[in-house]
Amino acid sequence: MRTLTILVTAVFFLLSTASAGSQPQFMFVPVPTTVELGTGSLPITRSFSLAITGFHDGRTDRGAQRFLVQLSRQTGMFLKPTASEPSKVTLLIHADHDSEPVQKVGEDESYDLTIGESLAKLHAANPLGILHGLQTFLQLVEITPGGFRVPSVTIKDQPRFAWRGLLIDVARHFIPLDVLKRNLDGMEAVKMNVLHLHLTDHEGFRVESKSYPKLHQVGSAGAYYTQAELRDLIAYARDRGIRLLPEFEMPGHSRAWFVAYPELASLPGPYSFQPGSGPDPVMDPTQDKTYKVLDKFLGEMSKLFPDAYVHIGGDEVSGEGWDKNPKIQEFIHSHGMKNNQDLQAYFNQRLQKIVNKHHKIMIGWDEVLHPDLPKNVVVESWRGQQSLAAAAKQGYSGLLSFGYYLDLMWPAARHYAVDPMADAAATLSPEEKNRIWGGEACMWGEWTTPENIDSRIWPRTAAIAERLWSPQEVRDVNSMYTRLDELSWRLEWLGLAHRAGKIHMLHRMAGVNDISALRTLADVVEPVKDYARMENLKGPWDNTAPLNRLVDAASPESDTARHFADLVQRYVQSGFRDPDAESAMRALLTAWQGNDDKLHPYLEHSFLLSELAPLSQNLSTVAAAGLKALGYLDKGEPSPESWRTQQLADIGRAKASVADLLLMVVAPVQRLVEASSLKSASASR
Amino acid sequence: MRTLTILVTAVFFLLSTASAGSQPQFMFVPVPTTVELGTGSLPITRSFSLAITGFHDGRTDRGAQRFLVQLSRQTGMFLKPTASEPSKVTLLIHADHDSEPVQKVGEDESYDLTIGESLAKLHAANPLGILHGLQTFLQLVEITPGGFRVPSVTIKDQPRFAWRGLLIDVARHFIPLDVLKRNLDGMEAVKMNVLHLHLTDHEGFRVESKSYPKLHQVGSAGAYYTQAELRDLIAYARDRGIRLLPEFEMPGHSRAWFVAYPELASLPGPYSFQPGSGPDPVMDPTQDKTYKVLDKFLGEMSKLFPDAYVHIGGDEVSGEGWDKNPKIQEFIHSHGMKNNQDLQAYFNQRLQKIVNKHHKIMIGWDEVLHPDLPKNVVVESWRGQQSLAAAAKQGYSGLLSFGYYLDLMWPAARHYAVDPMADAAATLSPEEKNRIWGGEACMWGEWTTPENIDSRIWPRTAAIAERLWSPQEVRDVNSMYTRLDELSWRLEWLGLAHRAGKIHMLHRMAGVNDISALRTLADVVEPVKDYARMENLKGPWDNTAPLNRLVDAASPESDTARHFADLVQRYVQSGFRDPDAESAMRALLTAWQGNDDKLHPYLEHSFLLSELAPLSQNLSTVAAAGLKALGYLDKGEPSPESWRTQQLADIGRAKASVADLLLMVVAPVQRLVEASSLKSASASR
Repeated sequence: MRTLTILVTAVFFLLSTASAGSQPQFMFVPVPTTVELGTGSLPITRSFSLAITGFHDGRTDRGAQRFLVQLSRQTGMFLKPTASEPSKVTLLIHADHDSEPVQKVGEDESYDLTIGESLAKLHAANPLGILHGLQTFLQLVEITPGGFRVPSVTIKDQPRFAWRGLLIDVARHFIPLDVLKRNLDGMEAVKMNVLHLHLTDHEGFRVESKSYPKLHQVGSAGAYYTQAELRDLIAYARDRGIRLLPEFEMPGHSRAWFVAYPELASLPGPYSFQPGSGPDPVMDPTQDKTYKVLDKFLGEMSKLFPDAYVHIGGDEVSGEGWDKNPKIQEFIHSHGMKNNQDLQAYFNQRLQKIVNKHHKIMIGWDEVLHPDLPKNVVVESWRGQQSLAAAAKQGYSGLLSFGYYLDLMWPAARHYAVDPMADAAATLSPEEKNRIWGGEACMWGEWTTPENIDSRIWPRTAAIAERLWSPQEVRDVNSMYTRLDELSWRLEWLGLAHRAGKIHMLHRMAGVNDISALRTLADVVEPVKDYARMENLKGPWDNTAPLNRLVDAASPESDTARHFADLVQRYVQSGFRDPDAESAMRALLTAWQGNDDKLHPYLEHSFLLSELAPLSQNLSTVAAAGLKALGYLDKGEPSPESWRTQQLADIGRAKASVADLLLMVVAPVQRLVEASSLKSASASR
Repeated sequence: MRTLTILVTAVFFLLSTASAGSQPQFMFVPVPTTVELGTGSLPITRSFSLAITGFHDGRTDRGAQRFLVQLSRQTGMFLKPTASEPSKVTLLIHADHDSEPVQKVGEDESYDLTIGESLAKLHAANPLGILHGLQTFLQLVEITPGGFRVPSVTIKDQPRFAWRGLLIDVARHFIPLDVLKRNLDGMEAVKMNVLHLHLTDHEGFRVESKSYPKLHQVGSAGAYYTQAELRDLIAYARDRGIRLLPEFEMPGHSRAWFVAYPELASLPGPYSFQPGSGPDPVMDPTQDKTYKVLDKFLGEMSKLFPDAYVHIGGDEVSGEGWDKNPKIQEFIHSHGMKNNQDLQAYFNQRLQKIVNKHHKIMIGWDEVLHPDLPKNVVVESWRGQQSLAAAAKQGYSGLLSFGYYLDLMWPAARHYAVDPMADAAATLSPEEKNRIWGGEACMWGEWTTPENIDSRIWPRTAAIAERLWSPQEVRDVNSMYTRLDELSWRLEWLGLAHRAGKIHMLHRMAGVNDISALRTLADVVEPVKDYARMENLKGPWDNTAPLNRLVDAASPESDTARHFADLVQRYVQSGFRDPDAESAMRALLTAWQGNDDKLHPYLEHSFLLSELAPLSQNLSTVAAAGLKALGYLDKGEPSPESWRTQQLADIGRAKASVADLLLMVVAPVQRLVEASSLKSASASR
C-alpha cells in the first residue's frame, strides 16, 4: 500500500508542475492504481498499428477499431483501419480469456499497460480490462515538439469499486438514443460501467411494452424507446464494458402507468399528464390484479434487459393515495400491519418474488429497506452513507447515490469529496464493507433537455468516476480540476456537446451572431443550487415548459469564476505581491466592469434576455468594486471604512439569485474588498 | 420587373438598418423573388401547430416533421410532433399535386408564403415548393421583447436557375455518409437542389460495384459507400428536394480504375496509390474491352442512381498515356483523327451511346465539347462564362462551376460576384440563355477531411446558392455578409461543424484547454489562395498525409479580419472622426500586439505550432504599427516619413505567407499607416 501511495503522489507531482504552455504530464481521469514512470517515450506516427493476440472476438475488434478512430481524432492522422501482424506493431493487445456473456458485478476489470520506446503492451484477463487499458493509452497521448508521443510508463490498474454508474432520468424529459450513446462514449472514457436508465416516472413511460402496449402508446406522451432501440443500446453499452440497468418506478412515481391503466391505481382516475392534475398516483398493492400485471410486464422486461438486476424504484411514496382509500386502510388493518410503510414492505416482498421468478435481483431506493425483505435485495442510497452503512450491517449490499446528484448543480469538488466508505461506512467491518459496491452519479431530469444534458453530466461526472475507480488516497482537488479541464475538451471529440450546446443556446437567446457580451456574463454565473429553482417556481412544475433561459444554458460550475477565485487566493496568499495574478485579475475585472454597457442593447431586444438586466448590472458593479479594492491594495493605502461598508452592502445584494442564477465572482471580489482594509504589503515595496 | 426591384430594395433597406443589439429584420439566404411587408406579426408559441391539406405523402409529412424539429431548436420550445386539425393551426400547408417520381431539371419549385397575425399559409404546386417555403418560414423566425415571432409578409418565390448544385469530391479524401447528410441539410436550408458526388479519381473508387467488385475492394483503398448506403443517401436527398448526380471520371483522373483493373489502361501497369508512382493513368479508348466494361458498369450504376443525368468527367487528359502507346497512335492515324483531342471525342461518342442505352443523359467537363457530340450532352464549365456561352451557341446546355471552386479559398464576395449570365453569356440570345441551367459550387478534396470540410463549404456556399436562386439584381455585398454571418451560426444547429471543427483542431494542436491566444491568431489568418499550397509542397502531394496544421483548421475567410477592415474603412471615410470605430480598432490591435507573448510558450511545446512563430510575431509587429498610426492620427500629427518607410517595409514582409497562411489584417493596417501621413481631420477638433 505504501508503494502505491508513493507512485500516486509522483503522478500528482507531475500534474502540479504543469503550467500554461507546458503539457500537463498525465491527463488521467481516473488516476490508475499504480503508475511507474520510465524514461523515453513511444512515438505515435502515421504508421501506428496494433494487433490482438490471445482471446479476441467482435467486441475486442470493435474496441480496437474505436480506439484507432479516437487516436486518429486526437492526432489528426489517417490511421489504417486494419490490425497488423503482431511482429511489427506499435501496440500489442492480449486478453487471456472471454468475459461473462452478461457482464457481472465484480467481474475482473484489471489491466496492465507497459509502454516502451518502440512497443506498448496491454494485457488483461478479459476484454473488460482491454477496453479500460485502451482508454488509459489514449489519455497518455501528448503533443510534443517532436510529434505525438506516449511516455514510457508501467501501469497496473483495477477499480476500487465494482459498480460505477450513471443514472439518466429519461422519464421527466425524454432523451433520444443518440444522446444516450454519446454519453456511453463519455462513460467509457472514464471507465464507468453501469448506465442506469430511470425509464418510468409520473411524466412518462419510456419503454415499449408488447404485453401492455398502452404503457408506451398512451403513457409515453409520444416519446419512448422501442425494444429494438433498447437492444441496440444494450449492445452499444456492452461493447464499451457497460451494463444497462433498467428502472421501473413502483409503487410511487408512477402516474404514467395510470394514464395508461388507471385500474392499477389506489384511487379512481382518470389520470393525465396535466401538471398538478388528478389524485395522488400510487399503485394499489392490495389487489391481485396489480401483481398479475407486474408479473407479465416484468417477465417481458426481464427478457429484454439481460442484466442480472432490475431496479424497482420504491422511493417517496407519500401515502396519501393509500390513506384516502378505505379498502386499502382496511387491508392494512386486517393484515396486522401498522402503517403504510408496512404495506410498502408487503408490496416489495411480493414484488421481490416476481422479480426472482424471472431470474433477476431486485434493487430499490432506501425506502425499500425493511426487515421483512430477503438479503439479496440491493439498496441504492439517496440518503447517505449512514443509510448505506445501516443496510450493510443488516446484510444488504448497497450503492451510494447521495452526494452524487448532478441536478443539484454542485461543483465537481463537492461530489469528489463524497466517498462511499466515509462517515458511518468507515466504521464497518471488512465483511460489511464488502457489501458497499460503489455508487452512481444521478442525472435527474426536471431541467434537462437533449440540448443541455451533456453539460449537466460532463465533466463533473468524471470526478465521481475517479472517486469510484481510483485509490481512496487520490483526493487532491487542484489536481482533479487540472485534469478535468483537460478532459473536458477531449470529451467533445466523442460528440458530447457539454460546451457547444451552451453556445447554440446563447445564440438563440440573443438571436444574433455576436454573443461576446452575453458569453462574458454566462461564463461567470451558475444555476441556483439544490432545489432552489423548483422552490422559486410560481406555478406547478411542468415538463412541457420550454427550457431555453440562461439558467438552462449556464454550466453547473463556472470555470472562469473558479479560476478568478484561484487568482484572488494566490494574490492574497502572496501578501498582495503576485503581479501576474494581479494583472490577470485586472484584465478580468475590467472586462466585467464594461460588460453591462455592451450587453444592455441586446437585453432589450429579447424576451429571453430581459430578466438578466439586474444580473448584468451586478457584474459591472461588483467588478468596479474589485478594481477599486485592487487600487487601494496597489497603493498600499487602506480603503476607507465608509467605502467598504457601501461596497459590502452592494456585494451582499449581488449574492442573491437573479433569474435563477448566481453570480459566482461575488465571493472572491468580497475577499478583495475586505482585504483592502489592510495596509497592504505592497506598500513596503 | 420594376415592382420586383423595389420590393427587393426594401428588403435590403431593412437589412442595412440592422445593427448590434437589434435583430436584423430578414435573415433570408437566398433572398426571395418578392417580399411584401405587412403590419404586425405572428407569434410562435408552444402551441404552434401545422396542417397539410391538398396533396401530401411521406415526403411532405417528413418535411413538416423536420420543420417542427428545427423550429423547436430555434426556439427551445417542445413542439408537438403531430399535425393538428386544419381549423386551428398556425401554419396551413397546401400542395396542389405530387412532384415527379424522379426529380427533374426545371421542375416547378415555386411557392407562396403569406403570414398574417394569426395564421400563416404556404402554398405550392408540389412538394418541392413546400420544402423551400418551410425553409423561408424558418428564416423569418425572430426573437423579440415579446417572444418569438414571424413578421407579416407576403412572399412569392421561385428560383432563377433550375440547377443549383454542390459538388463534393469524395475521391481524394473519403467523406463519410453522416458528413454528406449534414451537408444535405445545409443545402436544403439555402434551397440548393443538386448534390454532385465526384465518386472516382486517381485516389479512390468510392462506390460499390457488384459487376466489377475489385473497383471498390481494391480501388477504394478501404473507403467506399455500399449501394445500400447510396440508396439511403439518395432517399435522404430526395426528401430535401435535392437530386443526386453521380460522377465517374473517365478516361483520365482514373488511376483507381487501374489499381483494380490495369487492363483498362493505355499503358501496362501495375498501378498503385503510391504518390507519383506508375505511368500516366488514362483509359485505352481503342480497345473494345474498355467499352464492354463501361457498358456493364454504367448499366449497373444507372439502376443505382435514379437521376436522369450521369457525369462522366472527361477533363484534364494529359495525353501522355496515349502518346506513349504506339498501338493507340496507330489507331488515331488509321481512323483519320488529327490528335488526342479527336481520340477523346471518339471515346465520348461511344460513351454517350452507352449512357443513352441506359436511358441517361451525359454530362462532362468543358473538354468533352467537340462538334461530333450530340446536342443533348450537357457541359459543365470550369473554364468560365466564355466557354459556357460557346457551348450554348452550339446548342449545348451548360452549367457554370468556374468561379465557384471552394478549394481556392476565395472570400464569399468573390464567388458572389460570379454570375452564370455575365460576360460572354450576357450577349446570348434568349433561346441560348435558356440553355444555361445554373451552376455548382465545387468542393474539391485535395485538402479536405471529414473534420474540416464543413468549414470549407459553409457559409460561403450559401452566397453561391443565393446567386443561383435570387433575382440577378440581388447583389449587395454588405447585405450578403450581414446575412451570411447570421446564417452561419444557425447552420450549426443542423449538425454542421464549420465553426466547432476549428476549435477541436486548435485544441489538438495546442494539446491544452487554454487555446485563447492560439485562437486569436487563428481568427485573423486564412489559408493561401488558389493553388499556392500545392505549389509550396516539397514532395508529391499525398492524400494519406495528415491534415492537422493550422492551414487545415483556419477558415477560408476570416470574419475578424473582414470586420477589422470594415472598421478601418469607416474610420478613414469619417475623416478619422469615428470614435466608435477607433475604439473598436484599438481594442483589436491591442489584443493582437500582446498576443505573441501569450502564444509563444505554447508554440514551443507542439510540433504542430512551431511553424507559426514568425506568423505570430508578424501579427504583433503589424498591430503595434497600427496602434502607432492611430496615435498619430489621434494627435492630428503626420507620422514621420522614416517611420512610415520602416513600417511599410515590415508590413510588406508580413504579407508573405507563413506555414501556408496569410495574415489578413496586414492590408487594413497598411491603410492606417499610409493614412497617418496626413495631418488628420481630428486635429481640428
